[in-house]
Amino acid sequence: MLIKRSPLLKAVSLIVLLSFAVVSSAQRSRVPEVVYPPQLLSDLAALRDAALTSDYAYRQVAHLTENIGPRMGASPQAEHAVDYVAEQMRLQGLEVRLEEVRLPRWVRGIETAELVHYPGQAPGTTQRVVVTTLSGSSATPAGGITTEVVVVGSFDELKALGREKVAGKIVLFNVPFDKKKAAAGYAGEAYGEAVAYRAAGAKAAAELGAAASLIRSVGGAEYRLPHTGYSVPAGIPAGAVTAEDADLIAHLASQGPVQLHLTLTPQTFPEIVSHNVVADLRGSEHPEQVVVVSGHLDSWDLGTGAIDDAAGVAVAMEAVHLMQELHLHPKRTIRVVGWMDEENGGRGHDAYAKQHAAEMANHVGVLESDLGAGHPMGFIAKINPDAAPLLRPMLEVLRSTGCNALRQTDYSPGSDISPLVKAGVPGFAPMQDSRTYFNYHHTAADTLDKIVPRELQENAAAMAVLAYTLASLPQTLPR
Amino acid sequence: MLIKRSPLLKAVSLIVLLSFAVVSSAQRSRVPEVVYPPQLLSDLAALRDAALTSDYAYRQVAHLTENIGPRMGASPQAEHAVDYVAEQMRLQGLEVRLEEVRLPRWVRGIETAELVHYPGQAPGTTQRVVVTTLSGSSATPAGGITTEVVVVGSFDELKALGREKVAGKIVLFNVPFDKKKAAAGYAGEAYGEAVAYRAAGAKAAAELGAAASLIRSVGGAEYRLPHTGYSVPAGIPAGAVTAEDADLIAHLASQGPVQLHLTLTPQTFPEIVSHNVVADLRGSEHPEQVVVVSGHLDSWDLGTGAIDDAAGVAVAMEAVHLMQELHLHPKRTIRVVGWMDEENGGRGHDAYAKQHAAEMANHVGVLESDLGAGHPMGFIAKINPDAAPLLRPMLEVLRSTGCNALRQTDYSPGSDISPLVKAGVPGFAPMQDSRTYFNYHHTAADTLDKIVPRELQENAAAMAVLAYTLASLPQTLPR
Repeated sequence: MLIKRSPLLKAVSLIVLLSFAVVSSAQRSRVPEVVYPPQLLSDLAALRDAALTSDYAYRQVAHLTENIGPRMGASPQAEHAVDYVAEQMRLQGLEVRLEEVRLPRWVRGIETAELVHYPGQAPGTTQRVVVTTLSGSSATPAGGITTEVVVVGSFDELKALGREKVAGKIVLFNVPFDKKKAAAGYAGEAYGEAVAYRAAGAKAAAELGAAASLIRSVGGAEYRLPHTGYSVPAGIPAGAVTAEDADLIAHLASQGPVQLHLTLTPQTFPEIVSHNVVADLRGSEHPEQVVVVSGHLDSWDLGTGAIDDAAGVAVAMEAVHLMQELHLHPKRTIRVVGWMDEENGGRGHDAYAKQHAAEMANHVGVLESDLGAGHPMGFIAKINPDAAPLLRPMLEVLRSTGCNALRQTDYSPGSDISPLVKAGVPGFAPMQDSRTYFNYHHTAADTLDKIVPRELQENAAAMAVLAYTLASLPQTLPR
Repeated sequence: MLIKRSPLLKAVSLIVLLSFAVVSSAQRSRVPEVVYPPQLLSDLAALRDAALTSDYAYRQVAHLTENIGPRMGASPQAEHAVDYVAEQMRLQGLEVRLEEVRLPRWVRGIETAELVHYPGQAPGTTQRVVVTTLSGSSATPAGGITTEVVVVGSFDELKALGREKVAGKIVLFNVPFDKKKAAAGYAGEAYGEAVAYRAAGAKAAAELGAAASLIRSVGGAEYRLPHTGYSVPAGIPAGAVTAEDADLIAHLASQGPVQLHLTLTPQTFPEIVSHNVVADLRGSEHPEQVVVVSGHLDSWDLGTGAIDDAAGVAVAMEAVHLMQELHLHPKRTIRVVGWMDEENGGRGHDAYAKQHAAEMANHVGVLESDLGAGHPMGFIAKINPDAAPLLRPMLEVLRSTGCNALRQTDYSPGSDISPLVKAGVPGFAPMQDSRTYFNYHHTAADTLDKIVPRELQENAAAMAVLAYTLASLPQTLPR
């Protein structure tokens, strides 16, 4: 179920989450000041300072992306990442469990396209179109399909064309990602507007009998770079062309008929048993109470998944690494989770929610970083409003790093933590500067060089300080 | 001969040409003011204004790039572009000749690479490396070659390694394009520093017995985008990996042995007869005297050659289009030239220089636009210093468009006009803002969307006004 819900939910969340960068201080004057124990404040400051000079998180991102590489769920690389992170957490002295997640392996196969007939064409020539397969795509025959392209700018335009003009053709949803909006700080809103077509475009096209569905890539890259991602399986081939190729096809189609030869040959192999990595730094007073700090282990296959989401896994690992280095002993258990299959179904967080259903009341906070490694301006939080004042001294500790805003929302701040948040667990994510995130997101260019070491350190500081706060405050947050 | 000289010469020129944006006014006070006939000034202003509202040049770029597509020399698309531009110039009422250029056809073939052995590798996996073939590359066997990679940062480092450590291996020249320098306005200097390795890297590697040569792509893209280009044939396979892949290989190689499987299968086919397009708007008083306004018809094959160099061809076409629209009659002949084979040998300009060797004295000025379509800040000129004052009123006409600088240099301002400039003909190019030019240069992302219509109009204004000035001044420029 979540397979179909997850991407849309995520998109909707992002719209809300990324659209605001400044915390409202309306409530500030109405509640009494919260004071943390001096030792806690001193421990938090030590964590922050250690995070800002440590290279542990960066080395984890480097290993996951460069030595292991792309980590598509159920691939040998993803399995290797499970083992690697588990081993690293054991080396940090944590209690590590591998918790079962069953998922199929998806393999991209061939993805090519060329314009074979179009106005003004040089005799005997074709033009290459850069395309990538979306995960819900059916396969074309090995030799591809060749048919006319119909270009639309919205679901409404598609509907208006009707079955007669769509059946048997390739639909191209030419909906631009709003780069100006993203550059102005509303990247999530820009993403949300366009990603609806990635998720549901093929389904809408298939309902009118289309032979295949293409979208304009959802992202801000101007470098002939296709963005892949999840799409609802619709029984037809589904791909994403680059912004440049969408322009090309749209321009040519406005001049006369355009025929495209499209070959996409994805394959889905039987389910294997993979795992979430669950590693506990056991609490000294309330070991049964748990704070989750997490990122997802799997990535798309085009790039090496640095910003999405080796960075998230690495800052979660760094949080406990720093506590161990500083010999800090949280009262509650801090649990590092490396989620499996965030990208292509969310089976990892579904499995966790089932396996730990009885322990929801003991989950006192869940953190996930899954929006890159840009400078964090604070936190996005789905919490009881009465919990906010309890976090103020923690935010003050982070103020010097520029990470002291708190944006409360009605949605889960991360897709993997959404089942926990839905069960009432206070949920958090770093509120990263994501203005350039969607330039690289789900592309071959999501690579180590996109990580700015200092900003990764700031994210590690944010995750470590928040997690340690939730694990060490005298009381838990009201739910 | 020029095949080997051209790219280095071009690089050296660019260093000098693009490194300065401000004209020296040292000479201004020493010479008497030059006054143009009022009618000429009025005609120039009319040309400028018409250029800034015309969409003719943009439509030419659109047709060349989107309807015709990539125009690798001797390809059917390049031949079609020759016919198209010739026909358009005939429609403008010009006398059109196709002048023979013999050149071989180069076809890229397969270009793939993968890391097959490296430190920390997940068992049973490999990693894709994004590579593109350089034009001087030999072909690998169809099944590719597999061997160790040696990473060097300079020719000196390679030499220091010596034959023993290089023979049989793949050399990677990991020399970064200086993006900060480019962003600061010194794009040509950044290009020149790195392109030396594209041109001569394979030769240096081959001399030490290397099995193949790779460079880090020469350009500023951060989007896993390889940049192709000319390289001196050295009898070994030669390619360019992306900046990200160069980083990846260099990092892994610093940890232990790295083996790469490389397949590049370029083919060179026998020479065909192609053409420069030469189209004359005949002068009313001195038809034997010629002002050339030009760009090159051929492009690399990865993109559609919008900034390199459909834009140059289009602004040259626009210059005469505007004169015809305004019923202007230059005293001297204005000759539009669409050069063939600028990218892969320069056989077009060699052929022109030979065919017109006897007419050099009657070439009174040569203009080429081959650095994109960014805002022109003025002109780069290889002229007798005494000619500069004669151009001042022309620059004043363009001042309102921000195009009034004159940068004099000792090198030819364009590669196709270099034989003419060497023969003493005053040579000019628009001095474009090229800060982002090398992000797209020689890549799949050199496409129509990179053209800013207003800036293309400014370039057309610059070319039209300068060409008409040279063709209509009472005297020709001193040489």
